[in-house]
Amino acid sequence: MTSAEPSGAGRRAAVVGTGLIGGSIGLALRARGWHVTGRDDDRARAAAALERGAVDALGDDVDAEVTFVATPVGAVPAVARRLLTGAGVVTDVGSVKAPVVGAVDHERFVGGHPMAGSEQEGVAGADAALFSGAVWVLTPVAGTAAAAHSLVRSVVSSFGAEVVELPPERHDALVAVVSHVPHLTAATLMGLAAERAEEHGALLRLAAGGFRDMTRVAAGHPGIWPDICTDNRDAIVEVLARLEASLAQVRQQVAAGDRNGLLAGLERARLARLNLPGRVTVADDLAEVRVPVPDRPGVLAEITTLATELGVNIYDVEIAHSSEGEAGVVIVVVQAAMVERLHGGLVGRGYRPSARSLA
Amino acid sequence: MTSAEPSGAGRRAAVVGTGLIGGSIGLALRARGWHVTGRDDDRARAAAALERGAVDALGDDVDAEVTFVATPVGAVPAVARRLLTGAGVVTDVGSVKAPVVGAVDHERFVGGHPMAGSEQEGVAGADAALFSGAVWVLTPVAGTAAAAHSLVRSVVSSFGAEVVELPPERHDALVAVVSHVPHLTAATLMGLAAERAEEHGALLRLAAGGFRDMTRVAAGHPGIWPDICTDNRDAIVEVLARLEASLAQVRQQVAAGDRNGLLAGLERARLARLNLPGRVTVADDLAEVRVPVPDRPGVLAEITTLATELGVNIYDVEIAHSSEGEAGVVIVVVQAAMVERLHGGLVGRGYRPSARSLA
Repeated sequence: MTSAEPSGAGRRAAVVGTGLIGGSIGLALRARGWHVTGRDDDRARAAAALERGAVDALGDDVDAEVTFVATPVGAVPAVARRLLTGAGVVTDVGSVKAPVVGAVDHERFVGGHPMAGSEQEGVAGADAALFSGAVWVLTPVAGTAAAAHSLVRSVVSSFGAEVVELPPERHDALVAVVSHVPHLTAATLMGLAAERAEEHGALLRLAAGGFRDMTRVAAGHPGIWPDICTDNRDAIVEVLARLEASLAQVRQQVAAGDRNGLLAGLERARLARLNLPGRVTVADDLAEVRVPVPDRPGVLAEITTLATELGVNIYDVEIAHSSEGEAGVVIVVVQAAMVERLHGGLVGRGYRPSARSLA
Repeated sequence: MTSAEPSGAGRRAAVVGTGLIGGSIGLALRARGWHVTGRDDDRARAAAALERGAVDALGDDVDAEVTFVATPVGAVPAVARRLLTGAGVVTDVGSVKAPVVGAVDHERFVGGHPMAGSEQEGVAGADAALFSGAVWVLTPVAGTAAAAHSLVRSVVSSFGAEVVELPPERHDALVAVVSHVPHLTAATLMGLAAERAEEHGALLRLAAGGFRDMTRVAAGHPGIWPDICTDNRDAIVEVLARLEASLAQVRQQVAAGDRNGLLAGLERARLARLNLPGRVTVADDLAEVRVPVPDRPGVLAEITTLATELGVNIYDVEIAHSSEGEAGVVIVVVQAAMVERLHGGLVGRGYRPSARSLA
């Protein structure tokens, strides 16, 4: 965040595409005093944005200082080029950057990608605070005007977002690693299990919490993925090839009985996972409390309410179902210093929790 | 579960290894009237089991009708062979079956693997109800005496477990698919991301909820994995090779722009994931309610308590953190018929939930 936050009073901005992200941008701008004009090819969506107060007016604004293009990625270049015939700065929110930045190729265009809320849909879910604390990637290139870059950066920062600047190709490589390839891998693992399941219905009954976690994203609607795989083809292909090579190495370690090699790899992964930036940065502050529970309404509420009453903040929560059973385990992640307090409270309510440090 | 549940009154059983699983077996047996003798090379653990009431006495029992070997997998064959010099039936609870069954090779030995609670440690977490509703795999082979098989089956069923019978090699292949290879894959994905992160600290800040889910298991202590990879080497190597081949196929589809092929694979995975047996078997009965929340203590308790008050059972819950921010999204999975009720309640408390069907 910059030290002097810009006020939008008397300033004009525009949003093209008034879904969840566009609507949230409109709300965030208006909350800071900007006048916001919105446009959406879907009339109903445009009307909803106006009614929701996400925009002041519908249509175009030739005087907009900055326009946010929040359409699907494929539509960005044409929309951006049209807007750039005016005098304002244009930025977008697409999840793939190199093809967009290359296609638009203009000094007043700054590629962007807010890492927030992309799974929700519609202006009904729009929120002025959606970007507060979220990472917002900007991808300025050599030809980008410093003033355009600086304007987008200051506006996005004023939303409370944390700006991360990356070359467009680098952004695409990184999201391939942390989003696109993991998604394709989850689907592939699920597919492998399903192949076996056709032979043996038993298999999926053996699937416990870890497998459920790993494949959860595979339950989402696949409609957006062909576009993503087209738009970010090169990066996805490269990362998939690296994943295949890494898995082949693990396979060779298993085949050769290379216990030290396996352990070293797993230990590196463990440290990296524990250091995944989150709301708590000191990984060894955290501990996991596992609470076997019966499957009845209210048990989760009872546990989380107890934690609240005891002043124990829950950093993460998970229900690990036993495969087909009625019982399960509620896993809550809390600060290590709070374990004793939560454990005592749970025992007092008749639970049998166990705890282990995540350090 | 058999229709006539056997009573253990006047019958004698034994448990070798009195940790969480062995202790829970002891408790479950005693709750059904059995006399249980326990043994553990770790004196403190044996004493704790006695104090906890998981066993009646410590030592050996030559009159035990059935003995459960609940030691680490590597120790099972030697322990089982010693016990089989007596007249009783012996079974085990190890997570890999073919090497154990092959090494013991005795008509009164029945391999077993209860899919419950294996991540917890120590008799303190032991629970007579641990196996109620859980899948308990038995791996009888051609040389297994029918009477031995039937005895183990009836005792395990009396615990409320659902018995699934599989050849030992089949069991090992299936757990490779749903447990071992997914775990190694999570660690590999995390390792790939961490490699990149050394170049670009930004990467891990781009990691959102899906990536966190997929790599969560990689945060566990790696100590048990070299043993698992040794014991189940062949199955793991085969499944890793199949995963590599499937990922190569996906990579070729992405490279070739084969949108229909990608979509078909993702759709198959989606259906398989939605049909993963759980506590609700009709997948299209479920819906997901996403609730953007501030990061403050009590918000999870408020949501889950509200659900309880409204009579809405929560089938699954997840906190999707925004990458570095204070905000997040609580995702609760409930019956589709309950969505409207929960949604209304949440709106009434000032939340802005969105819902989508998982069908």
